[in-house]
Amino acid sequence: MNERGYQLLQETIERLLRRNAYVHLNKVLKKTHPADIAHLLTLLNERSARSVFENLPEKEIAANVLSELEPGFRSGFLQELEINRLAEILAVMADDDAADLLADLPEERRQEILNLLSAEHTEEFSELLAYPEGTAGRIMTTDFLVLPKSLSAQSAILEVRKAAEKEMVFYLYVTDEEGRLSGVLSLRQLVTAPDYTPLEKIMTRDVVKVNVTTDQEEVARLVSRYNLLAIPVVDHSNLLVGIITVDDVIDVLREEATEDMLKMAGTSGEEISYSSVWRNARARLPWLFASWIGGLIAMNIIGAFSGGFSGRIAVFAILATFIPVVNGMGGNVGTQSLSIMVRGLATGRVDGKSIGREVFRELRVGLLLGATYGVLLALAGMAFTRDVHVGLVAGIAICANMALAAMMGTFLPLIAAKFKVDPAVASGPFIASSIDALGSTIFFLTAYFLIN
Amino acid sequence: MNERGYQLLQETIERLLRRNAYVHLNKVLKKTHPADIAHLLTLLNERSARSVFENLPEKEIAANVLSELEPGFRSGFLQELEINRLAEILAVMADDDAADLLADLPEERRQEILNLLSAEHTEEFSELLAYPEGTAGRIMTTDFLVLPKSLSAQSAILEVRKAAEKEMVFYLYVTDEEGRLSGVLSLRQLVTAPDYTPLEKIMTRDVVKVNVTTDQEEVARLVSRYNLLAIPVVDHSNLLVGIITVDDVIDVLREEATEDMLKMAGTSGEEISYSSVWRNARARLPWLFASWIGGLIAMNIIGAFSGGFSGRIAVFAILATFIPVVNGMGGNVGTQSLSIMVRGLATGRVDGKSIGREVFRELRVGLLLGATYGVLLALAGMAFTRDVHVGLVAGIAICANMALAAMMGTFLPLIAAKFKVDPAVASGPFIASSIDALGSTIFFLTAYFLIN
Repeated sequence: MNERGYQLLQETIERLLRRNAYVHLNKVLKKTHPADIAHLLTLLNERSARSVFENLPEKEIAANVLSELEPGFRSGFLQELEINRLAEILAVMADDDAADLLADLPEERRQEILNLLSAEHTEEFSELLAYPEGTAGRIMTTDFLVLPKSLSAQSAILEVRKAAEKEMVFYLYVTDEEGRLSGVLSLRQLVTAPDYTPLEKIMTRDVVKVNVTTDQEEVARLVSRYNLLAIPVVDHSNLLVGIITVDDVIDVLREEATEDMLKMAGTSGEEISYSSVWRNARARLPWLFASWIGGLIAMNIIGAFSGGFSGRIAVFAILATFIPVVNGMGGNVGTQSLSIMVRGLATGRVDGKSIGREVFRELRVGLLLGATYGVLLALAGMAFTRDVHVGLVAGIAICANMALAAMMGTFLPLIAAKFKVDPAVASGPFIASSIDALGSTIFFLTAYFLIN
Repeated sequence: MNERGYQLLQETIERLLRRNAYVHLNKVLKKTHPADIAHLLTLLNERSARSVFENLPEKEIAANVLSELEPGFRSGFLQELEINRLAEILAVMADDDAADLLADLPEERRQEILNLLSAEHTEEFSELLAYPEGTAGRIMTTDFLVLPKSLSAQSAILEVRKAAEKEMVFYLYVTDEEGRLSGVLSLRQLVTAPDYTPLEKIMTRDVVKVNVTTDQEEVARLVSRYNLLAIPVVDHSNLLVGIITVDDVIDVLREEATEDMLKMAGTSGEEISYSSVWRNARARLPWLFASWIGGLIAMNIIGAFSGGFSGRIAVFAILATFIPVVNGMGGNVGTQSLSIMVRGLATGRVDGKSIGREVFRELRVGLLLGATYGVLLALAGMAFTRDVHVGLVAGIAICANMALAAMMGTFLPLIAAKFKVDPAVASGPFIASSIDALGSTIFFLTAYFLIN
């Protein structure tokens, strides 16, 4: 459905709600894809969204709608739902989606719901929830088809026919007697094999797999690199415990890209734009603190230098007009380098191994850029102030500042990655404000020696 | 393969190359996944990479390696390859990958290669290349299985067995007599259906499809929203002309995320880090120009105000120390808003419809953040300068600046999206330098009225 389609759907739904035409509403919802209903909910106001959700024709549809809701919107929406209804829906949901949803709830509410569920479900969800967030164990489904390696191709096809309820089947994982992963075959390999061949003769033995503790970003990298539709998850003794399908990998890729982009810009990694203005501001406030501290430091450095110029305060005043361009250009070069590295780390193009090489490379890029704009600023400075010294100082400072910024923007995320620290510590606001403080120092120090 | 695995592989390959042990090298390469060879090439120096590529055991493997190379690395690598070899490899490559690769070559070289290929290939590739970059037509493959709707389930299974060479088969697209798309069925639906049922009785008629001209980002959104493994591509008369598989969608998602992140930081959208220092700098230079212009404008504004303070230049000098914190905080809030919007547009969470609502929302967030840091800066300013007026001016200015920045960071990408302009016009450097110029004006204007 496209934008126009959603608009029409929204208008229809709102009209039906106004008229209390629930029978008709029910029919419309039945014909709409759960993913579209999920998107529709974010377009409606709170009350209408709840009404629509309460009028979904079946628990199964409600389960699919909840699975497809944007994570940023879902947390708020879940709080509004009645706990018994939520438990009923969870009972029919895919186990990985259910665990993901439960993880979103406050501890107390989660416990209440688990108490309402059958022992089997509780155990299943609790097992998945036991794996830390962001691991393969947390996003895998345990509901999948396994075939013993001695089975014939023909019997395997019968098994596939019976297993219509399982997750999308396209790879069939084959295990030995102990349940250890021993091979894989595609549905096509199976249907194209002679009837009585045992699976172990047709399966591929070299399976790309991950461990329950593997980071979900690594899972996404593997699936993307090897163009897989699913990847099996094993525990420490190679027992097959779950699979992760490509649709979940796409969600991971999107979430991680969102997280990287937002963190780099200095806001908390989750999408906060569905939450209230107040919560939105609260999520962004602490990230601005780095910038604030940097600004205060820069303020004190400049203040200290202004003392050094006490005899020639007019010269200081002229120099001060250069602060935005010197700091701004530094900040931007730093952000460029930072983005290139953060994205390179995410796609696996850059690793923690070659820090020296990358930093040296970016230093040269920074110097090239700095030299270019240094000459320009020196000329512009001389033209505007009619003072050769001031122009020279500004040119030298901007060049040094841009080279330094390129180095910092490269070094900080790489060193963070090397020590397995979230590269977000080197987020944009931190880089920019460090450059503000360092850049001001470089600028006025150069001025102090060349002019004063 | 993990990082350690690649390191070992690299060492082995380099040792074999030093010893000219080509037979052994050949064996090692034969056992390595093409995607791993593709990654290995980026780790080796230029000469070794070329040697490895020339020693690949089969054309098919070379074709897969080229398909898996990172776009940023590939352009440079392709220039080194001998043209006859490249033509041979293209002839065995999947048509969508071949078209993608040809598009990467300079016009002249592309024409030379097309001349070397058979008429059939030339026609196929030229057709795909005729679709503009970034459209569904450009990334689709035309090599896929189509079944007529009157076929029985049993005969369809035979067709699938024969079509082992086609792209991964999991959805089977069903057409009418004229070749128009009329339905879809999964391989599982097929194997679980009674033998003599015609496909039109078991197929799903409501197919999610795209047009040849649909934007690839829209394709990715649909595949991701409906959890599809492939999506059919039709032309203007609903003739089925191609399919796009989920692995290509993953590539699109990764490329688009990279592009958004890099453009937002103000560098050209492609990964430039494989290219030379010189080319890297050249790609970044123009994006910094926005920042440069903004800086010069800010410089002149501040310079003009310093004239207004001519009698009390010491006050101006004190005020100047606040420039980094006032501008820096504004720039950061602006970048936060910008990132939230750019990402929201990419994931489809935000659309061009509700500009007013989003801007008003962000204005309130900006005012909240600005008020908080305004009070802090007013207090800090009073403490540092022992001047109530200066503190007050700084506090008011930072608050106004942050609110304005939040609005600009929201408005510019949304208005760009509304008018189908690349939101990159509202990239980080542009926002930051606009804030520098506007922020300085607000600050000194407030000072001018409250202090002077």
